[in-house]
Amino acid sequence: MDRTLLTAFLITAAAAPAAAQQTVATLPPPVIEDPRVAALRDDALAKDHYAWDIVEGLTTEVGQRLAATEAEGRARDWAMKRLTAMGFANVHVEPFTMPVWTRGPESAEIIAPFPQKLTVAALGYSGSTGPGGITGQIAYFPSVDALRTAPDAAVRGKIVFIDHNMQPAQDGSGYGQFGAPRRQGPTIASLKGAIGIVIRSIGTDHHRNPHTGVQYFTDGATPIPAGALSVPDAEQLIRILKRGRPVTMRLTLVSEKHDGGQSGNVIAEVPGRDPKAPILLVGGHLDSWDLGTGAIDDASGVAITTAAARHIMDAGRPMRTIRIVWFGAEEPGGFGGNAYVKAHGSESYAIAGESDFGADRIWRFSSQLMKSDPAAYAQLAASLAPLGITKNDKGDADGTDVEPTIKAGAPWVSLNQDGTRYFDWHHTPDDTLDKIDPVQLRQNVAAWTAVLATLSGGIESGAKQPKRR
Amino acid sequence: MDRTLLTAFLITAAAAPAAAQQTVATLPPPVIEDPRVAALRDDALAKDHYAWDIVEGLTTEVGQRLAATEAEGRARDWAMKRLTAMGFANVHVEPFTMPVWTRGPESAEIIAPFPQKLTVAALGYSGSTGPGGITGQIAYFPSVDALRTAPDAAVRGKIVFIDHNMQPAQDGSGYGQFGAPRRQGPTIASLKGAIGIVIRSIGTDHHRNPHTGVQYFTDGATPIPAGALSVPDAEQLIRILKRGRPVTMRLTLVSEKHDGGQSGNVIAEVPGRDPKAPILLVGGHLDSWDLGTGAIDDASGVAITTAAARHIMDAGRPMRTIRIVWFGAEEPGGFGGNAYVKAHGSESYAIAGESDFGADRIWRFSSQLMKSDPAAYAQLAASLAPLGITKNDKGDADGTDVEPTIKAGAPWVSLNQDGTRYFDWHHTPDDTLDKIDPVQLRQNVAAWTAVLATLSGGIESGAKQPKRR
Repeated sequence: MDRTLLTAFLITAAAAPAAAQQTVATLPPPVIEDPRVAALRDDALAKDHYAWDIVEGLTTEVGQRLAATEAEGRARDWAMKRLTAMGFANVHVEPFTMPVWTRGPESAEIIAPFPQKLTVAALGYSGSTGPGGITGQIAYFPSVDALRTAPDAAVRGKIVFIDHNMQPAQDGSGYGQFGAPRRQGPTIASLKGAIGIVIRSIGTDHHRNPHTGVQYFTDGATPIPAGALSVPDAEQLIRILKRGRPVTMRLTLVSEKHDGGQSGNVIAEVPGRDPKAPILLVGGHLDSWDLGTGAIDDASGVAITTAAARHIMDAGRPMRTIRIVWFGAEEPGGFGGNAYVKAHGSESYAIAGESDFGADRIWRFSSQLMKSDPAAYAQLAASLAPLGITKNDKGDADGTDVEPTIKAGAPWVSLNQDGTRYFDWHHTPDDTLDKIDPVQLRQNVAAWTAVLATLSGGIESGAKQPKRR
Repeated sequence: MDRTLLTAFLITAAAAPAAAQQTVATLPPPVIEDPRVAALRDDALAKDHYAWDIVEGLTTEVGQRLAATEAEGRARDWAMKRLTAMGFANVHVEPFTMPVWTRGPESAEIIAPFPQKLTVAALGYSGSTGPGGITGQIAYFPSVDALRTAPDAAVRGKIVFIDHNMQPAQDGSGYGQFGAPRRQGPTIASLKGAIGIVIRSIGTDHHRNPHTGVQYFTDGATPIPAGALSVPDAEQLIRILKRGRPVTMRLTLVSEKHDGGQSGNVIAEVPGRDPKAPILLVGGHLDSWDLGTGAIDDASGVAITTAAARHIMDAGRPMRTIRIVWFGAEEPGGFGGNAYVKAHGSESYAIAGESDFGADRIWRFSSQLMKSDPAAYAQLAASLAPLGITKNDKGDADGTDVEPTIKAGAPWVSLNQDGTRYFDWHHTPDDTLDKIDPVQLRQNVAAWTAVLATLSGGIESGAKQPKRR
């Protein structure tokens, strides 16, 4: 786009020099990228290893980090050690308690008419079938709305199965609309008297790896066992149903829920030269679902933002404090983000942003600064354009963890990763390190480095951090 | 290649008309494709639904079909019904008995230094750990040869882990060389005193789906538990090992083996006008591994060859009998092929061939007819070329099931599918219907239809099969 405009301008200028002045007058004033920001950005793009080291280390040495379990505790210990070793200041955990849900043995089996096993995983906060499982006839619905409008008699005593047709999209927009079977299905099924529910995984792949994810029983619904079939298994069940005979399933989803689980946010800082200047808040979430190792969701997010902060620190001391938060317990419902705003909501923020959509290339950004500080917004756009990142004037704030802080008044910045592949692996056993492309990961770090450098208020290169090791 | 040659010829001819006659004289005589064969082939390419109906039906209505289990028995019943309904003659089962190996609960877990679960599946004829599992230190080897040359002391009492570096290849050639950890590793590990073995899956994907497959304990080796980690899990284990600390694994691979299992070959025919003419033998295998639904391995193979035979039958009555065999128990060691040759090895065959490499596009073929009947070979080449299939003069006989019959003297034909994707799914839970591309499946049917039509000895279109329904 920019190249086309430039070419058009050059042609116009060459062919009709007399008209050139007039054309220029209608163009917006030029925004030149800050060469110091550009240098930091390009250095991160070429050489960053901090992010890979974090995502490789966390996924290898801890693995899955289910919220409020001992695994998430080990992850906090790991985070404390790593952030301290990287030389950040004020590294600490801010603990909180919450209910903890854990998965036990699970299986799904067609009993009739064509006996066979299907691949299933319980959704978060699913009810438990107990070890013996439940057996029931399948009641099929092509959408959550079809379930909503069905008479109770079509559902009562049965195992509901909801289909959908989510397709890959660069902006990940299918997740909102097509995620309804997971978010609303269990409650509606329970209220209509179903004994259990399975959904087609909210995913865009064709592998035998179910997509878990959170759901809540609302409106007084009794928790029932709720699981996701992998996409190939959901399609298999549909083929079986199309034969027109009653289909009986045995479903075993053992799980436990209890109160008093321990989670926490891990916080670290690059102290600013002006402690009173509004803070740059960035981060991602430390917890993951239990099926994979949480590489794209969200070891990469904490890695990217932390690496960017470290690049600023390497360059010197920013005017503003950069605060990195590795939020706890995002997956079961944003507990870390809520705990954070309770403790820190009244502080003053220059910007709040997070990375929680994998590690593929960032393709566009948006920010509230477009309205509140157009000059800063233009500077951001200029510093991100060389990475192939466009500005999206219609964008919204994004991210479960920073949402409460943004609602409390912090201005926001959103950097959007390409989500075409994201829902192939999201919340599945397949969320593992091999899904991360180191080159695209570095582009992410470069982008966040550019954002932090642009908004830092200036980096004083003589004044290095005192606490570095 | 052909196009380049043609272009070169045209240029030469235009530039030097005097020399053209001489050039033409050195070219081989033209082989014109038989228009009746071409019509049958192109009809199958455009319209075949028999193959899809079989592969969809078998994988949906039966699912996995582990050799000598009741599931394979249900598959034989299904095959009898379907082949009869399709109008084939002499549809029957030829049963045989064999040892049967079945899988129980299985898991792999790193106990130290970084506790986490890995995804594992037992290999065929693995020893059983019993429900309590075994615990041992990992002894890592980058190849089966590294294991072979290691001192026993490096292995004794440990759980061996063998890595490899198989990559995708169109001709599937990596499977031979890189399959050694599976085929030889368990025996070598056992002879050196290992308590168990896990290998990197013999596969080319990055999904959390292990690749099972057969192995035998030879040379007096005691069976030990032997499993395959999924590729991402094998890479994870390597990263953990690279930290340099002892790695302890708990491995549970429960399995059972007993004698007296029932399997069988399902046989059907298109009777030829000349019952004494050598037979056209084609087929695939009915059994599958137990993890997926055996769509590419090998429901598609029986589907493709059966569909081709049906297209011949639709056209009329061939001079030669076409015999279709859906072989039983190929996966655990070619039991069906061996049972077949015992019963039918002394019969006279015009050709023996099978389809057992998925359902992606056939890209080349080879045949013993190149030497024994060059005119027929040239006709095959002419009838397959329009499908984009080249002749491979250096090709070999291919296929576990027809191998014993070929060794007993039957001439062979091999049609090679593109194997680039095949080892992404081979022997995994991911071998499901969605991996089959209906367009490429039809190309396979068209190719086999062309082969059968070319070698049929002529199809008499007035003389339709009496037994059709």
